[in-house]
Amino acid sequence: MSDTEKTFRPEARNPRGFADKRSDQIALERRLITTVSQVYEAFGFEALQTPAFEYADALGKFLPDADRPNVGVFALQDDDEQWMALRYDLTAPLARFAAQNWETLPKPYRRYAFGPVWRNEKPGPGRLREFMQCDADVVGSDRPEADAEVIALAVTGFKALDIPVRIRINNRKLLNGLLSSLGVADPAQQLGVLRAIDKLDRFGMEGVELLLGAGRKDESGDFTKGAGLPSAAIQPVLDFVSAGGGTTRAQVLDRLANVLAQSPEGQAGVEDLGRIATALAAMGVDDEAAVFDPGIVRGLEYYTGPVFEAELLLETRDEKGNMVQFGSVGGGGRYDDLVARFTGERVPATGFSFGVSRLAAALALVEGKKAARVRGPVVIIAFSDADMGEYFKLAAEIRAAGIPAEVYLGRSGMKAQMKYADRRLSPAAVMLGGDELAAGTVTIKDLDLGRDLALQISDNKAWREGRPGQVTLPRQEAIKHLKTIVDSI
Amino acid sequence: MSDTEKTFRPEARNPRGFADKRSDQIALERRLITTVSQVYEAFGFEALQTPAFEYADALGKFLPDADRPNVGVFALQDDDEQWMALRYDLTAPLARFAAQNWETLPKPYRRYAFGPVWRNEKPGPGRLREFMQCDADVVGSDRPEADAEVIALAVTGFKALDIPVRIRINNRKLLNGLLSSLGVADPAQQLGVLRAIDKLDRFGMEGVELLLGAGRKDESGDFTKGAGLPSAAIQPVLDFVSAGGGTTRAQVLDRLANVLAQSPEGQAGVEDLGRIATALAAMGVDDEAAVFDPGIVRGLEYYTGPVFEAELLLETRDEKGNMVQFGSVGGGGRYDDLVARFTGERVPATGFSFGVSRLAAALALVEGKKAARVRGPVVIIAFSDADMGEYFKLAAEIRAAGIPAEVYLGRSGMKAQMKYADRRLSPAAVMLGGDELAAGTVTIKDLDLGRDLALQISDNKAWREGRPGQVTLPRQEAIKHLKTIVDSI
Repeated sequence: MSDTEKTFRPEARNPRGFADKRSDQIALERRLITTVSQVYEAFGFEALQTPAFEYADALGKFLPDADRPNVGVFALQDDDEQWMALRYDLTAPLARFAAQNWETLPKPYRRYAFGPVWRNEKPGPGRLREFMQCDADVVGSDRPEADAEVIALAVTGFKALDIPVRIRINNRKLLNGLLSSLGVADPAQQLGVLRAIDKLDRFGMEGVELLLGAGRKDESGDFTKGAGLPSAAIQPVLDFVSAGGGTTRAQVLDRLANVLAQSPEGQAGVEDLGRIATALAAMGVDDEAAVFDPGIVRGLEYYTGPVFEAELLLETRDEKGNMVQFGSVGGGGRYDDLVARFTGERVPATGFSFGVSRLAAALALVEGKKAARVRGPVVIIAFSDADMGEYFKLAAEIRAAGIPAEVYLGRSGMKAQMKYADRRLSPAAVMLGGDELAAGTVTIKDLDLGRDLALQISDNKAWREGRPGQVTLPRQEAIKHLKTIVDSI
Repeated sequence: MSDTEKTFRPEARNPRGFADKRSDQIALERRLITTVSQVYEAFGFEALQTPAFEYADALGKFLPDADRPNVGVFALQDDDEQWMALRYDLTAPLARFAAQNWETLPKPYRRYAFGPVWRNEKPGPGRLREFMQCDADVVGSDRPEADAEVIALAVTGFKALDIPVRIRINNRKLLNGLLSSLGVADPAQQLGVLRAIDKLDRFGMEGVELLLGAGRKDESGDFTKGAGLPSAAIQPVLDFVSAGGGTTRAQVLDRLANVLAQSPEGQAGVEDLGRIATALAAMGVDDEAAVFDPGIVRGLEYYTGPVFEAELLLETRDEKGNMVQFGSVGGGGRYDDLVARFTGERVPATGFSFGVSRLAAALALVEGKKAARVRGPVVIIAFSDADMGEYFKLAAEIRAAGIPAEVYLGRSGMKAQMKYADRRLSPAAVMLGGDELAAGTVTIKDLDLGRDLALQISDNKAWREGRPGQVTLPRQEAIKHLKTIVDSI
């Protein structure tokens, strides 16, 4: 048997839909998560970390006797035959944890969490099977003020991130009230109405009107069947949808109270929103940052009261300059039935989830070349094996001064070492050659000069132009000079 | 069918061997990871995040045609029939990543990474199937100085964490040289010798001597078969093992050079260690922090050169006061064959891994009740639904001053609210009752007074005793008073 036949060499490749992250992206995601976590803690939320796995029955997607319950999730059978699955969000594990520890938790239980979640879906461009979520939830409060606080939290978080976002708020009770006041009781028709409302952003009011009725033909001639409402029922829905948009929360509430005057559930929804409005105003959340929008339809099978959606107010364009629709960069709402799956007891809960991976992608597009790239360390050039001790001594001194530093550890020559330092985005290369060692000096090359850095601050440009690209100075002045270079970044 | 029969209620429970983490433990692990990451970055390491899954063949544990390759790992088959497994460490994914991107990486490639790893093993007390690792590796340098740098990195990391640790260093080449100079060529006998050496800490020199020869009977009468070395070969091994311990690195090297005088591979190992010693001295790593210890045996199938082990120098006792052996809290070494699995090309690599979960457990035991617990927010007591707006306004003001705060959002009375604040470890409760609102005042209760906090600093005690437990003051003075309370923690 030849050597080739004997040795199996696997191909080095990522599993489909799973990506590696390099330092720039990691730094961006960390910044997002750290900032949001600080805001969560400022609002009194406590950290929780649940494991990657849950028992499949706890995730609530499957019958316990299903043979291979891995539709949508990554599931496997433990050696005791129990099916476990990787979490697909952070809410299902919270429900399990809250049900399990309900007696001993301080209530209402306010927890935040972040971490990867996994979805066993068909991967595609920008559609990974592993991505980050970052959630805060209040479990055990039925007060609309809890919803208001979660909205204020989201507004504060996006502000801290310096990302312009508008939170759009609706209430399932309004939609339910509207449907029942119109006598729409058939679930399929209800869904049809909600789907029509959901198309407002795309097709405008005329499109919604068509979709509420018989249906709509698009430019290509394709026909989408409508909800089939009688024409008398269409106008109230259009009135409902047009109650939002471009006005104050108080004005929207007035209009909704009118439109839903005949519906007790609708009025209850308006009342909830009224209390949310009062709390938002008290917390200084203005009408620009959080709006009531009866056109928001999301998580129909999931949310039971107020729902929130974070809309990115940035024009994002890809490398070719095409507009990119980012849609929602976060959302949440009230879900009162989740813990009940375990205990039978309805425990009210409300929360918000930042879409970390999506926000990072949006920021990367927006900041583009201006985005702060992760800088490499100061690189000490390795000239001679015999002098490695000298290099390491200086590296330790530079690090002690708070500047990342390393000795080049490969076997290549000067030119390759400079190229290495450049590719690491090092601020400077330090040379301790034989001449320098004999003279007690050090040569420092400023690597940002001549580097096409989009992050270069123009104010510093004049100063930079007067700055020497390479200097030889007494060794005891090395740290000071390196600090000047690093501080100017 | 009755309602009870109809409704399946899963039990809320963790999968076997998977634990939830609460805020205190999370804070401890975050502190460990943040500190170590900063040290890694100071040494010029670049962050990398690989996904949870790798293809099973890339993990290198299985034959690609195995039917169900999930021994030791959590594996499942993707819908294209390929087996994927959750990573069981951070090194195998690094090898895959480095092999995949070798052409475009700056070389030597210095990366650090942290994150959970998963092992499909029998869970037990303190033995979880999901735990954190935090690694740094240099890929593409065959220089012993790279090993020295990794050791200095570990020393600096433990120092930054304020955890007393000694790094014990050995070299596979010494062991290989010893074995070949003694003519021990049979792999089983080689393993027997190494296993005997590994028992020095437990059984002392006499125990090792017995295990090198015929074998050793323990107190219970159980007999462990020895390596069966001829008596002439036993003394050189004992000389080798006793070359370490309690002396300077230079002294150990001298002794090892003597013991291994007849072995070229042994001499090469001593030379490597000599260059490591020079670099360590240059970086200011003293003889206490990093020792050469020829008795260290670890990762025999894995490491090819220097190996490192971090030994905790703390007496750790459990709640019952019993000594707890923590053993290694980190380790690493040189592994030159890992990338070769993919490319056929030998790429030298060396690295160190902090055992985050183990370190956190050790710290928790050591710090015990003195450990800083995560504090809750200032809690604003909810007296009346009508005044919620006032509460929220004050909460926003407190948060704006940098103090975490929340309005109590449950429906319970005053007493339960105070208990809630106490259980959250809140520094203070704030009362804005009808009287206060009418008078423009606020009542603040200092919750640390009377709380049995082991973290209470004795220096503050006298001041604390003179401090009022509850005061009513003008509302504009509320923030200042809260700051005084929070700053005294």
